[in-house]
Amino acid sequence: MTSKIMSYSYDEYIELVRSFHGFPAPGVLIGGFMVDLAVKNLPEGVLYDALCETKTCLPDAIQLLTPCTIGNGWLTVLPLGRYALSLYDKYTHEGVRVYLDEAKMGPWQEVRNWFMKLKTKQEQDTERLYREIQEAGQDMLSLRPVKLKPEFVQEKHKGKVALCPKCGESYPVSDGEVCLGCQGSDPYF
Amino acid sequence: MTSKIMSYSYDEYIELVRSFHGFPAPGVLIGGFMVDLAVKNLPEGVLYDALCETKTCLPDAIQLLTPCTIGNGWLTVLPLGRYALSLYDKYTHEGVRVYLDEAKMGPWQEVRNWFMKLKTKQEQDTERLYREIQEAGQDMLSLRPVKLKPEFVQEKHKGKVALCPKCGESYPVSDGEVCLGCQGSDPYF
Repeated sequence: MTSKIMSYSYDEYIELVRSFHGFPAPGVLIGGFMVDLAVKNLPEGVLYDALCETKTCLPDAIQLLTPCTIGNGWLTVLPLGRYALSLYDKYTHEGVRVYLDEAKMGPWQEVRNWFMKLKTKQEQDTERLYREIQEAGQDMLSLRPVKLKPEFVQEKHKGKVALCPKCGESYPVSDGEVCLGCQGSDPYF
Repeated sequence: MTSKIMSYSYDEYIELVRSFHGFPAPGVLIGGFMVDLAVKNLPEGVLYDALCETKTCLPDAIQLLTPCTIGNGWLTVLPLGRYALSLYDKYTHEGVRVYLDEAKMGPWQEVRNWFMKLKTKQEQDTERLYREIQEAGQDMLSLRPVKLKPEFVQEKHKGKVALCPKCGESYPVSDGEVCLGCQGSDPYF
């Protein structure tokens, strides 16, 4: 059982999650243990990027605990629907992947019920769920070394920009004659 | 010239950006004014979601200044390459869109040089750029009311999950017989 998540006590981390994510969601708490495990398995001092395989909860643990955010481009979210993240060397693209491992959940059935959606939110024993998350810590996680395929490493330079002749806003010229919004992806009526 | 960004002084906001984003990037500073303008143009007390039309910088301003994050699902990033965001009522999907407006940049040529990539980073007059961002505040922004098309409003419920028969990890069964990673989207060698 890990008593610290990065430089935070578990209770400090809960408060950090509450202030950013709105409430201490089980997924972000478990995500804290995942990030901690991943970072501890990288060579010391390595500059890393992050890949998150789900949009749900986990990106916020990464953003709170590492230098990687959506806006600075060091975190990529690839929505594969798997509760997994990898941290990898910016230059060699080698690193570690950590995932929440259902096969290790034997002693923590309320976590399993939550993770596999075996109970509705009303049926959930919330107190037990939170207790199990803290007890389990990193014991329900698995880790393996990975190397990213080049096509999944985020492109850092966007190239030239211009004003879209249709909407008049700035856009990357590599997107085409008009911006992607004016090509039909505009989300508004 | 706005002296506050939400509840923060400009200098407090710069420090907040530094701690989260790594450095006070021009785009996140301008993004602060954008979020502030959008929030002030929503009906008071409305529960809103956010849509960000670029992956670069702007999502971090939204995550720092609103309850909307990637991980809690209240922020959607739609990478259209436009420096624009919208905040909209969770239920009616009506709200406001704010964008950085090149047509209003006449008095702030160093912002224009940065935004339209007319200078390399080496040629940039960084001190002037930061001064202009603060001077301009909300004066280089434009705003209009919007209503989101239903297909761009984020789906909140993922439905059933199961263990992928190939990799053994949990995934949304609506993705198919095996998880998206095992369908060929796995990012690792």
